[in-house]
Amino acid sequence: MSLRVGVVGAGIMGADHVRTLHRSISGAWVQAVADVELARAEHVLASIDGGSDAWATADPAGLIADPRIDAVVIASSDATHAEFINAAVRAGKPVLSEKPLAPTLGEALELQKSVGADAGLVSLGFMRRFDPGYTQLKAAIETRSIGRPLLLHCVSRGVSSAPGTTTESSVTNSLVHELDVVPWLLNSPVVQVSWHAPTVAATAEGALQDPQLVLLRTADGVLTSCETVLNARYGYDIRCEVVGETGAISLAEPVRVITDGIGGRSVEYAADWRPRFADAYRLELQAWVDGIERGRSDSEPTPVLARLMDGVRASAVAEAVIESLHHEGRPTDVKLLEDIR
Amino acid sequence: MSLRVGVVGAGIMGADHVRTLHRSISGAWVQAVADVELARAEHVLASIDGGSDAWATADPAGLIADPRIDAVVIASSDATHAEFINAAVRAGKPVLSEKPLAPTLGEALELQKSVGADAGLVSLGFMRRFDPGYTQLKAAIETRSIGRPLLLHCVSRGVSSAPGTTTESSVTNSLVHELDVVPWLLNSPVVQVSWHAPTVAATAEGALQDPQLVLLRTADGVLTSCETVLNARYGYDIRCEVVGETGAISLAEPVRVITDGIGGRSVEYAADWRPRFADAYRLELQAWVDGIERGRSDSEPTPVLARLMDGVRASAVAEAVIESLHHEGRPTDVKLLEDIR
Amino acid sequence: MSLRVGVVGAGIMGADHVRTLHRSISGAWVQAVADVELARAEHVLASIDGGSDAWATADPAGLIADPRIDAVVIASSDATHAEFINAAVRAGKPVLSEKPLAPTLGEALELQKSVGADAGLVSLGFMRRFDPGYTQLKAAIETRSIGRPLLLHCVSRGVSSAPGTTTESSVTNSLVHELDVVPWLLNSPVVQVSWHAPTVAATAEGALQDPQLVLLRTADGVLTSCETVLNARYGYDIRCEVVGETGAISLAEPVRVITDGIGGRSVEYAADWRPRFADAYRLELQAWVDGIERGRSDSEPTPVLARLMDGVRASAVAEAVIESLHHEGRPTDVKLLEDIR
Amino acid sequence: MSLRVGVVGAGIMGADHVRTLHRSISGAWVQAVADVELARAEHVLASIDGGSDAWATADPAGLIADPRIDAVVIASSDATHAEFINAAVRAGKPVLSEKPLAPTLGEALELQKSVGADAGLVSLGFMRRFDPGYTQLKAAIETRSIGRPLLLHCVSRGVSSAPGTTTESSVTNSLVHELDVVPWLLNSPVVQVSWHAPTVAATAEGALQDPQLVLLRTADGVLTSCETVLNARYGYDIRCEVVGETGAISLAEPVRVITDGIGGRSVEYAADWRPRFADAYRLELQAWVDGIERGRSDSEPTPVLARLMDGVRASAVAEAVIESLHHEGRPTDVKLLEDIR
Repeated sequence: MSLRVGVVGAGIMGADHVRTLHRSISGAWVQAVADVELARAEHVLASIDGGSDAWATADPAGLIADPRIDAVVIASSDATHAEFINAAVRAGKPVLSEKPLAPTLGEALELQKSVGADAGLVSLGFMRRFDPGYTQLKAAIETRSIGRPLLLHCVSRGVSSAPGTTTESSVTNSLVHELDVVPWLLNSPVVQVSWHAPTVAATAEGALQDPQLVLLRTADGVLTSCETVLNARYGYDIRCEVVGETGAISLAEPVRVITDGIGGRSVEYAADWRPRFADAYRLELQAWVDGIERGRSDSEPTPVLARLMDGVRASAVAEAVIESLHHEGRPTDVKLLEDIR
Repeated sequence: MSLRVGVVGAGIMGADHVRTLHRSISGAWVQAVADVELARAEHVLASIDGGSDAWATADPAGLIADPRIDAVVIASSDATHAEFINAAVRAGKPVLSEKPLAPTLGEALELQKSVGADAGLVSLGFMRRFDPGYTQLKAAIETRSIGRPLLLHCVSRGVSSAPGTTTESSVTNSLVHELDVVPWLLNSPVVQVSWHAPTVAATAEGALQDPQLVLLRTADGVLTSCETVLNARYGYDIRCEVVGETGAISLAEPVRVITDGIGGRSVEYAADWRPRFADAYRLELQAWVDGIERGRSDSEPTPVLARLMDGVRASAVAEAVIESLHHEGRPTDVKLLEDIR
Repeated sequence: MSLRVGVVGAGIMGADHVRTLHRSISGAWVQAVADVELARAEHVLASIDGGSDAWATADPAGLIADPRIDAVVIASSDATHAEFINAAVRAGKPVLSEKPLAPTLGEALELQKSVGADAGLVSLGFMRRFDPGYTQLKAAIETRSIGRPLLLHCVSRGVSSAPGTTTESSVTNSLVHELDVVPWLLNSPVVQVSWHAPTVAATAEGALQDPQLVLLRTADGVLTSCETVLNARYGYDIRCEVVGETGAISLAEPVRVITDGIGGRSVEYAADWRPRFADAYRLELQAWVDGIERGRSDSEPTPVLARLMDGVRASAVAEAVIESLHHEGRPTDVKLLEDIR
Repeated sequence: MSLRVGVVGAGIMGADHVRTLHRSISGAWVQAVADVELARAEHVLASIDGGSDAWATADPAGLIADPRIDAVVIASSDATHAEFINAAVRAGKPVLSEKPLAPTLGEALELQKSVGADAGLVSLGFMRRFDPGYTQLKAAIETRSIGRPLLLHCVSRGVSSAPGTTTESSVTNSLVHELDVVPWLLNSPVVQVSWHAPTVAATAEGALQDPQLVLLRTADGVLTSCETVLNARYGYDIRCEVVGETGAISLAEPVRVITDGIGGRSVEYAADWRPRFADAYRLELQAWVDGIERGRSDSEPTPVLARLMDGVRASAVAEAVIESLHHEGRPTDVKLLEDIR
């Protein structure tokens, strides 16, 4: 029996989820797509040549409540995630929302309170946890194949920042991936952060400080450096290295061919996060679907999938980073950590 | 409506197909598994925690004929492929068989004759055509991004040869992948071959000539070298480089992490073909399922999937290679090519 | 006319310089070797099968003053560098000393004062400036081929720390290479530093904080991260990446072969700094000899060779790093910078 | 006492040798440069800012005979090598000639006869033997770190062929490097060859067959494939892989930096053989100089340097390759091998 999935949001990310669910996921199909712009939902639905009983709608709340929908994927704008997660939980349906849970820690905590005991229904789209590279980094840390971890170096470079991006929004939108994946890799929460920055790139627009360098200290004593360059121009380039007591392990750029040409010997970078993390998105959606099927009785997500609590924690760390950047980079403790844990 | 797939053969490859179909393919499920050893079929079926109406059987012919089966995957021993393909075609069901079509060109031609006008029902598991690396090589050739192709270098190394492998069986079983993928890449048939060999590796068993070096000449004038080492010991290592008039492009080893340790900076090889070509097997099965769904009326496989004719052609080239190796490596024309084309 | 060079210090580094001068340098030969342990000097001299008029001595001051010596290389223990540099300057002879100039900024400043107007006679062994990789990084920065530089990431890992190494001595002995090469690459002095550290590696001995992470801010606004791991165990691994506005450039590990074996595909790291920087030491010595020959009249070293002032600057930065580490990593301005510049 | 070297030929290669001898070699200096075009010799001499007693001349024979010259480097046109080698031998002077010994095997054998017992004075510029990569390949073969060698794959690609290059001259001029280095690596002579070719590249000029693929069989049973592309356009790209019974080892492109830019992650190829083999030329000249100094009494070159006999052997193999290409690629035994050995 296949899971009938409703997708809320038919933008870039929503369209990607719809295609992946339709083409590559076992045990689920796309039953409905909602977007405030109906034409966009219709366009995305048309692109997949789905079954005749699938529908497009401009009413996300209606989609979520519809009894013909078993589970919900949320890929609408950041500010709407909490509202739709709440609606899905009230309808008793498993929901996978794109990150972040909410733009601020306060809103995330409010959502947590309102969801209460039904938090098990909520999964969060920190897809890096499903990337085969990160998965191997985590396995190496857990098996101690490079000894106890000491340092992590994360690099996150994109081609260009979205219009209107601010230094603060880059933390909650982009850096937040590191703020989740680093404690997940180490199985240890971030307890202190500090924010640092060089001269601003001429390629950065408006009030954006680009690049940024953030140091994270986790409870296990590991120190992590996170470089973020939103306007790196040359490609979408994600790196992570774990330095341990007897060795180091790092992500390899997942390329499949090498070219010899006028520019020398080269490999291409992805243009953005979708091709780079295509495997991760597919495996995340499959794990979510599998978890629902296995746990229809208890709706327990699989251990790898980020839960609501992981989203709250990431928001708390993001808030500390923003506080540090507002205070000349001074070391800042992550607040509420004991309550949150 | 999901496709109900029956899998014939529950050995290493069959078990892999069952798992992939169950876990990662949209639009199909495993309805039955057949193996001459019933316990093996039952074991594989149990491993996937499938629906309650799936069954195991020791009767492949019964599975193929069963009306509750929509389509058939064949992963039984090489000598049985032709018989089961025939049975599926007689039952009017789409069938995807592991390579080779048959152990000899004669048997392949017989199968072709018997299948006749229903050849469209038959697909062949030359999965390399779906590997993201090979796909990019083909795109580079077609767009002429490295100019017109001149030379190809293929390398195929495995850890150790299966017991009983002979020089001849290594051609029909192992080299056959190159014999299909090279003309597919170039969109030009192999017209002449020559076989060459160095001193035999101490690691080779019995009468096996290991390594081997085969030169292929395609109708477009491209020259291809194919190195085969069945007992390379260090890992499963597949390479392909296309040298063109203005550049070259080659497969990258699809690794996701790099390790620094006592042995230096290193990346791991796959242990065998399954992890190396996991993406290819998944994409091949998905393409086969999608093709059936799209073409239920005409049963036309997708263009990338190898068809029966491709299997006949590969058998004809394999026969020419074996003839060359029986005649001190003399250049040997591929027989029957005009009839086959 | 070949330059008659006297080498002071016949330890690991001195022996290496003697061999390089003898075997690979045009226009110079080793005339004498001094070491407080005469046997060591004799042993090193014997190893090169030099001319019959070369001699070993236990009297470095005598060697420096000897009229048969044209120029002096100093590779004795750190604490003695200043004294021997002074002696060479008093003798009017060009001198190339291993780094550091002196163990503390105070002593470095004293040396600077005592040398006075003869500073042109003094060169300092910051050999990384001659490494072909660093040379290409500098060229990329100067030609702006990756745009204006924004961030640098330096990594310096060694196999194991020397007995008795302290956190402070690791700064003046090991990190000091970065403290020279970073401002040299950027052509901008370090103005502020901060020191950070994770949990201590079990492989570190005694009171040593290992690893360390130091942030440097140069006057041009570039932010540099310097990771130091003295007990990385797996090899001697030096990295440097420059991130610019339109691209990035980083050192490649200078390997000449790639091995496929049981451990996968691998390249070896150097065991220590001598093989890793063999090209750099050779080119540095050659540049020093060439500069002396060209400039016999004015004793001006070539622009790439570090001068006395560079050594003083590196000592000032090292002192700021040590102050930061003594104050919980607080950002610390580099003192005396205006005077020094 | 420094060796006074005379260089015959002030073309690209001669100029390179002059610069290397002057700047980077211990124990030798450039005393004179001869070229049939005096201005060219003068220009090269001027470029090195050598001593006041060095001279340029249009008379190579005079240079060779001059008592102020201790040893001779020959880098004139191919057809003149034998004559000048003979002259140097008659003058009793050590001579290092660029390859080939002579354009044909017949001329090489004539030279061998005329030199007779003084062959020890003659060294040949097969510089790959001094490339640090090839040196490590040879060490791996000798220590059996990858087991007994079975196969070699050589690739030699250049940017564009010199005007007037023919298929035959590409064998004696370009492929000849492989014809020397392969038996040197394996310590086993080439006994049989066969020549193969694909469609001609549009980038090839005139009557040149480009690319070519040559198979070599050495007495130890190893099979070697040698790909030559003279007009590869993208760069000067030299590869060599040794496949053994338990692993493989291959040359790494000797790059020092990696660039991230619009074209992706890339490394540059050398433009031609001089930068690619700069280390090899330097080490070859130094070994030649050292050998002369050590062996002034017996004029014995060091074991790595190619001798006259190696040049004769390479010419014999080249002749067999040319015979094969004139007979549709049939396997051709290397003639005279027993006499030559």
